[in-house]
Amino acid sequence: MTDWKTEISSSGEDAVIRGEKLGEVMDMDFADAIWLLLKGDKPSNKESELFNTILSSSIDHGVGNPSTVSARTVQSGGNEMNTSVAAGILALGDAHGGAIEECMQILQSEDTAEEIVDEYLEEGEKIPGIGHKVYEDEDPRAQKILSKAEELGLAGEKVEKMKEIQKEFAERKVGLVMNVDGAVAAVMSDLGWDYRLGKGLFIIARTPGLVAHVHEEMDEPDFRREDGEYVGE
Amino acid sequence: MTDWKTEISSSGEDAVIRGEKLGEVMDMDFADAIWLLLKGDKPSNKESELFNTILSSSIDHGVGNPSTVSARTVQSGGNEMNTSVAAGILALGDAHGGAIEECMQILQSEDTAEEIVDEYLEEGEKIPGIGHKVYEDEDPRAQKILSKAEELGLAGEKVEKMKEIQKEFAERKVGLVMNVDGAVAAVMSDLGWDYRLGKGLFIIARTPGLVAHVHEEMDEPDFRREDGEYVGE
Amino acid sequence: MTDWKTEISSSGEDAVIRGEKLGEVMDMDFADAIWLLLKGDKPSNKESELFNTILSSSIDHGVGNPSTVSARTVQSGGNEMNTSVAAGILALGDAHGGAIEECMQILQSEDTAEEIVDEYLEEGEKIPGIGHKVYEDEDPRAQKILSKAEELGLAGEKVEKMKEIQKEFAERKVGLVMNVDGAVAAVMSDLGWDYRLGKGLFIIARTPGLVAHVHEEMDEPDFRREDGEYVGE
Amino acid sequence: MTDWKTEISSSGEDAVIRGEKLGEVMDMDFADAIWLLLKGDKPSNKESELFNTILSSSIDHGVGNPSTVSARTVQSGGNEMNTSVAAGILALGDAHGGAIEECMQILQSEDTAEEIVDEYLEEGEKIPGIGHKVYEDEDPRAQKILSKAEELGLAGEKVEKMKEIQKEFAERKVGLVMNVDGAVAAVMSDLGWDYRLGKGLFIIARTPGLVAHVHEEMDEPDFRREDGEYVGE
Repeated sequence: MTDWKTEISSSGEDAVIRGEKLGEVMDMDFADAIWLLLKGDKPSNKESELFNTILSSSIDHGVGNPSTVSARTVQSGGNEMNTSVAAGILALGDAHGGAIEECMQILQSEDTAEEIVDEYLEEGEKIPGIGHKVYEDEDPRAQKILSKAEELGLAGEKVEKMKEIQKEFAERKVGLVMNVDGAVAAVMSDLGWDYRLGKGLFIIARTPGLVAHVHEEMDEPDFRREDGEYVGE
Repeated sequence: MTDWKTEISSSGEDAVIRGEKLGEVMDMDFADAIWLLLKGDKPSNKESELFNTILSSSIDHGVGNPSTVSARTVQSGGNEMNTSVAAGILALGDAHGGAIEECMQILQSEDTAEEIVDEYLEEGEKIPGIGHKVYEDEDPRAQKILSKAEELGLAGEKVEKMKEIQKEFAERKVGLVMNVDGAVAAVMSDLGWDYRLGKGLFIIARTPGLVAHVHEEMDEPDFRREDGEYVGE
Repeated sequence: MTDWKTEISSSGEDAVIRGEKLGEVMDMDFADAIWLLLKGDKPSNKESELFNTILSSSIDHGVGNPSTVSARTVQSGGNEMNTSVAAGILALGDAHGGAIEECMQILQSEDTAEEIVDEYLEEGEKIPGIGHKVYEDEDPRAQKILSKAEELGLAGEKVEKMKEIQKEFAERKVGLVMNVDGAVAAVMSDLGWDYRLGKGLFIIARTPGLVAHVHEEMDEPDFRREDGEYVGE
Repeated sequence: MTDWKTEISSSGEDAVIRGEKLGEVMDMDFADAIWLLLKGDKPSNKESELFNTILSSSIDHGVGNPSTVSARTVQSGGNEMNTSVAAGILALGDAHGGAIEECMQILQSEDTAEEIVDEYLEEGEKIPGIGHKVYEDEDPRAQKILSKAEELGLAGEKVEKMKEIQKEFAERKVGLVMNVDGAVAAVMSDLGWDYRLGKGLFIIARTPGLVAHVHEEMDEPDFRREDGEYVGE
């Protein structure tokens, strides 16, 4: 039989989150409470400011991406909010929002920037956190996060390592911008976050957007139908 | 063919959230960005303070409830973060987190407190927002939210209506505390939020907790198995 | 603490399904095993033939419908088979596959055909099981199911009641065909199935189609992106 | 913009499944229609018999496993059938139902039995398809599937390779039974199925069981709550 134990929280009269009384958590800003819950300590004011920026940067990205399409399509099938939001979150797989976690993992590994670039180039793959379809010179979201991290004195060795990866890649192949995933991954790593929370962080940031889209979809009269074409024999 | 239009946000170089440039949204606190995204305007400082308290109040509730069990059980089956968190959100149906939305709906209806209590008593049902298994005198989370709303001058006619419902119910049947769902529903209604976002609000607040539990589950060696018993013939 | 008891099945050395040894169930056709599992007895040969037709009739419907779009979109986000198929099933809400269950419910109610039509017309709603976008004279899938039920001597009072509903509706409003949902609902009701299994039956029939589409999507190189348009201020 | 094309099926008046008219598919047994849909041709009578046995063998496994617990827990939260069944399917990750696919993949690889055993032993891992907690001498479900495949003349080189893997493993480490996952994987591979459908096949077989459990859960009065314990500081 399974044994349900946790170090995270308790409920009821003596409810706590990571040892803090729930009543005190209710006086914390939501982003600070998220930090406490996931990291186990309270952020400093500077860490809090940077963390808020990172969360707000990913809050919504228009209507055409896979998670939004999935959430709204499911809602249009005649479902409840929880069902539709979950369908949106399901879409956030390796190819859609997965770069932050993969990038955090390589930054937190023992491998040097040089070894990392070698390995990816050998497999012919793109490096997570590097390159953007639209921006050639710089990705403004990435720059804003990096600038804020530097101003606040929170940019450390992982930001440095990310820049080295970018430089190594430019020397061997072609110069590409550091994108927002790379900036978030580097800064979150410097803030001491486990890479296995990279996707979870993105899910937390994106959930409000999915709720907003499902809410908007509630006013649509019909269900979503795409033009399909049968190309079999 | 479906036509994907939205009033919520756009992506790319000119990315906006409800008309605000993404760069500016990145300077907003996460809770304020959530408010902007879902309600379409920016909260005042007082509204922001109260909204943060409401979000932080629901952030996690221990390990035994349906959404946590579902998320951790799915993770233990050998899945990724997004799949497991989605399974937790699926559990947030009418019976688990649904009271806020139902309560917002009756508070935002034209019905008087008297009519509402009549209707529920006729159907022999519990009234959403009233009653608590543990607390007989007062629910401390509810009290904290109501006190803060009053101190900030943000408690309005919906908080009043909720109190009338509680009073009407006490006169006809039995005196019960207003619980945290009732307090959240009343305050969010006074803050001008559409009741159809009640469940969505709860999902946003609970998602960090689900991420934390899935992360903790990653260190469990085995999958979750309950003691089942066959009681068929 | 929850108590996990079931009358459905057991596992391990003495595994049974509804009292039948698993070894014997393995000698049954899959559709017969489904019947045993859900209804608790074994179908006759005639019931089995009709049940197979009903299941096969819903097995797949092209690529543009909500459940297929949702499943394939989620797969394209970089996910595993189980995650993507689940996203497809999530789309099967009230508006997409829900008519069978709603129709079974009214057929299994005490209400007469006349009362049913009255009630729906009063609320200005379409009647589940009646009407089809394409077919004006008859829906060939519905006809095939009804014919087979009649040939096999399995059409009973629920098929009769469904025809009366169609006739009542034609007298009051306009003559419309009985669609495949109506035929399935009537026949499954005559076969003695609980209406609360109506949606479940549809899910069982549609799952192979979702698996096929997710498998096909695995060969697509990119993730699914729709043309979205921002129409906010 | 995404382009929705498929070789699987079409809907509407000329609806087909893999080139077969839907009307004709409706005359096929459900298991045969599943085969057509997923594999693109029709099974012989012998293939059909074996395929039915494989599907029926996995139809349900009691109430304590992760997928059933997940589905029933979500249903108890106040949800619809589709939402709850999807939560059960989500639980079918790598660790719960994933062995069939992994085993099909190694059987369909170029690697010899010897190389496969070498590789797994080197990484210290269990070999998929080999070993069972309960059965020491033989797994009766595995034996039944293998016997039937041999009687029907359908056991081929993949069944042979699976036996070699078992033998190699016994020589190097310890003799373990071939389990039902191994038998299904070997037979489905000999039947010509793509290994990437291994998990999908299991999902199709298990969905009726999930529907049955969610249906049974509908009669439970309360939601599922486990005894959780807070073990934090």
